[in-house]
Amino acid sequence: MADPEEQLNEPWIPLAKTIESGNSDAAAELLENLSSADTALAIDRLTDDQQESLMNLVEPEQAAGLLAQMPDAQVVDIVDGLEPGKAADIIEALSSDAQVDLLGDLEPDEAEDILREMEPDVAAGARQLLTYDEDSAGGLMRTEFLAYPETATVNDVIEDLRKNAETYSDYDVQYAYIVGPNTKLVGVLRLRDLLLNPAQRMTSDIMLRNPMWVHHDMTREELSRFFDDHKFIGVPVVNEDECLIGVVQPDDVEEAVAEAAAEDFLKVSGLSGKEELRSMPLVVRSRRRLSWLSINIVLNVMAASVIAMFQDTLSAVIALAVFLPIISDMSGCSGSQAVAVSIRELTLGTVRPTELFRVLFKELQVGLINGLALGVLLALVAQLWKGNPWLGIVVGGALMINTVVAVCLGGMIPLVLKRFQMDPALASGPILTTVTDMCGFVLVLGFATLALDHLT
Amino acid sequence: MADPEEQLNEPWIPLAKTIESGNSDAAAELLENLSSADTALAIDRLTDDQQESLMNLVEPEQAAGLLAQMPDAQVVDIVDGLEPGKAADIIEALSSDAQVDLLGDLEPDEAEDILREMEPDVAAGARQLLTYDEDSAGGLMRTEFLAYPETATVNDVIEDLRKNAETYSDYDVQYAYIVGPNTKLVGVLRLRDLLLNPAQRMTSDIMLRNPMWVHHDMTREELSRFFDDHKFIGVPVVNEDECLIGVVQPDDVEEAVAEAAAEDFLKVSGLSGKEELRSMPLVVRSRRRLSWLSINIVLNVMAASVIAMFQDTLSAVIALAVFLPIISDMSGCSGSQAVAVSIRELTLGTVRPTELFRVLFKELQVGLINGLALGVLLALVAQLWKGNPWLGIVVGGALMINTVVAVCLGGMIPLVLKRFQMDPALASGPILTTVTDMCGFVLVLGFATLALDHLT
Repeated sequence: MADPEEQLNEPWIPLAKTIESGNSDAAAELLENLSSADTALAIDRLTDDQQESLMNLVEPEQAAGLLAQMPDAQVVDIVDGLEPGKAADIIEALSSDAQVDLLGDLEPDEAEDILREMEPDVAAGARQLLTYDEDSAGGLMRTEFLAYPETATVNDVIEDLRKNAETYSDYDVQYAYIVGPNTKLVGVLRLRDLLLNPAQRMTSDIMLRNPMWVHHDMTREELSRFFDDHKFIGVPVVNEDECLIGVVQPDDVEEAVAEAAAEDFLKVSGLSGKEELRSMPLVVRSRRRLSWLSINIVLNVMAASVIAMFQDTLSAVIALAVFLPIISDMSGCSGSQAVAVSIRELTLGTVRPTELFRVLFKELQVGLINGLALGVLLALVAQLWKGNPWLGIVVGGALMINTVVAVCLGGMIPLVLKRFQMDPALASGPILTTVTDMCGFVLVLGFATLALDHLT
Repeated sequence: MADPEEQLNEPWIPLAKTIESGNSDAAAELLENLSSADTALAIDRLTDDQQESLMNLVEPEQAAGLLAQMPDAQVVDIVDGLEPGKAADIIEALSSDAQVDLLGDLEPDEAEDILREMEPDVAAGARQLLTYDEDSAGGLMRTEFLAYPETATVNDVIEDLRKNAETYSDYDVQYAYIVGPNTKLVGVLRLRDLLLNPAQRMTSDIMLRNPMWVHHDMTREELSRFFDDHKFIGVPVVNEDECLIGVVQPDDVEEAVAEAAAEDFLKVSGLSGKEELRSMPLVVRSRRRLSWLSINIVLNVMAASVIAMFQDTLSAVIALAVFLPIISDMSGCSGSQAVAVSIRELTLGTVRPTELFRVLFKELQVGLINGLALGVLLALVAQLWKGNPWLGIVVGGALMINTVVAVCLGGMIPLVLKRFQMDPALASGPILTTVTDMCGFVLVLGFATLALDHLT
């Protein structure tokens, strides 16, 4: 019996012990009794081997439930380590959209090995879903839905619901879709309307005609706005021929939106959009971070090499060296704000990638005001410190101009990257800081060179 | 009739014209026919006056639908400009959870003015909901749900559903809750079970007993994991006495998670978590950005003042001035990665705010490897440029040590802030860069002072 306090504070210790003992009932029960917060923590702290043993120990349904609660990055690592047959059993216990999310995150070879072990019809469905863009309605939809032909009566549907009650209990679908030839969508049947109509009534008489649907290539953001406007618990997805191919639910859309926002956060923080957990192997964590840092140090050296061209000026006015990092950092800050606004506006749909001129115009105004404020502040600092108004003019003027440059560039770079199908959150930062650093150093040191007589 | 191409490219032009003409039917129809992408764009580009006129022109239900599709920041601005009576009409057309989100975002005075104009019972409900933390189950739940006493028969429920079909059509609830005295939750009734049972059966005989519920203070992240594990379309929320007070739906939880992630993204980008749209007034945009920048410039000046203490060393080895911004920027990059990992781990629940030692230990390892790699790289650059190995040792060594400092601090700062109830995404960055800048400058210039004989 584990010490209760130990269980409370370090829930992974009793879990690890149970896994080592190989007692599957005890493991299942222990997990049932953990809170969601403790489950997340306990599984994170298991070693890779323990995580794999756990997946093998409990029933595929419970293993699937655990995977659903874990961060995606961890799920991929765990499934990577399982036998393809075992992984296939667990993945089959997930809903179709979760299956595809996971298979899409795996290496293609790994995914293929698992697909081969899955039930042929489930595997075929998953392969089909994998062909859609993961951020489109096709990639977000699930294929578990109720569809009946136009010729079905109320009684036919009720009979079918009764017979397959167990299968359908996983569907959480509250509508049935009525389809014509080739599964062409013709109507939606609210299940509650079955209550209110006689058994022999045709479903096509009581269905809602011309139901709303979305095309499989509708984007995540459009779907999110769609569900903000229409309080549906699901919307049918159709292909080019208006044939029903799946159902998208609002929680799946919002979850995808949340993941995209979290990825943007990771990307601007220099993590390439990849979730890092400190339980991951050191070499993975170090390599991922370093791949970003090594690009940055090269860009930094390039930018700073500008300073070397003005060594004579620097030697003459050594105080300038104090202001170089300030101007570099402040321009970076101002530019990052503009980058973030553009990335959010692209996501929210309040700017189009082609509207460079609008962004330039809007940023120019903010840049002039904020540049003036920051420039004056820095000029005062320089004046107070050295008592030389020329030094203030040089550093304040450079910061002012560079702030305008930084916000204009910062606003426009994400639009340009988006237009060329590149990822704004990932690439905007390094491009911005390199250019604004160079520009800032040239401005300070260039102005100082011009005003050298007044500075020495 | 507007030019079709104009409608396609600038959907706000025909919309603005219709608003100016004051034709409410035309405005309603035009909006109905816009895609969700064009709606977002068109409303963004209207002037404040036009947005207000539009809200007054269309029916409250349609106005509410428009608000639901707009960015939150824009909604607050628009509602701010409306007469409280008009705002109350529109807000009443929103679901209870959306009402509270919006009222909570308004200034308290403004919200009070609107609440006073709302139907007394709706206003009372909203006031009650406003007492819950907006990121808890209480703040995310809606109060539109079906509840029946234990004594209700199948027939009673069906009768009630028939009678109130129109009201309930907005509920998208597929379960009814069975409650005892004081609305104590005793069971859940699946509506489809009404289909399968005789009319005189007691609902308490066919309900699911001991239904799952969550407490009103369950957090957003716990709810998200709960719904990842349980594929429910809603879960009942109870208070301290296990009385039913609302229902939380997974899409509302995921939407709140998405908003929190987007806010983190804005915060680390220096936007204080506030959404900025370029259609907002210049003075608002400029002031918000500047409030962050002005704190940063003060911190930057403080950090850079360290450089001034080493002016003699700098004068003697002017090449050092090239490396100061590089070390400042690279340490910032390394530290930001660690900050982002900690913020994500806190969100995902894979680290507790008390686990400083774990984070320190894990970051120390990454810091040593990455610090060594970056330090060697920078040392080589210095060696190649000036041919002096001592310069390489000074700048490379300083970058190595400062990388270790930056990642350890970056990893721990968010945990400490979280523990003291402060916002990690907002405050970590400025604290980190100020400390690592100071430390980096002292290291480079301190080492250089010690090795001065070899550098000149």
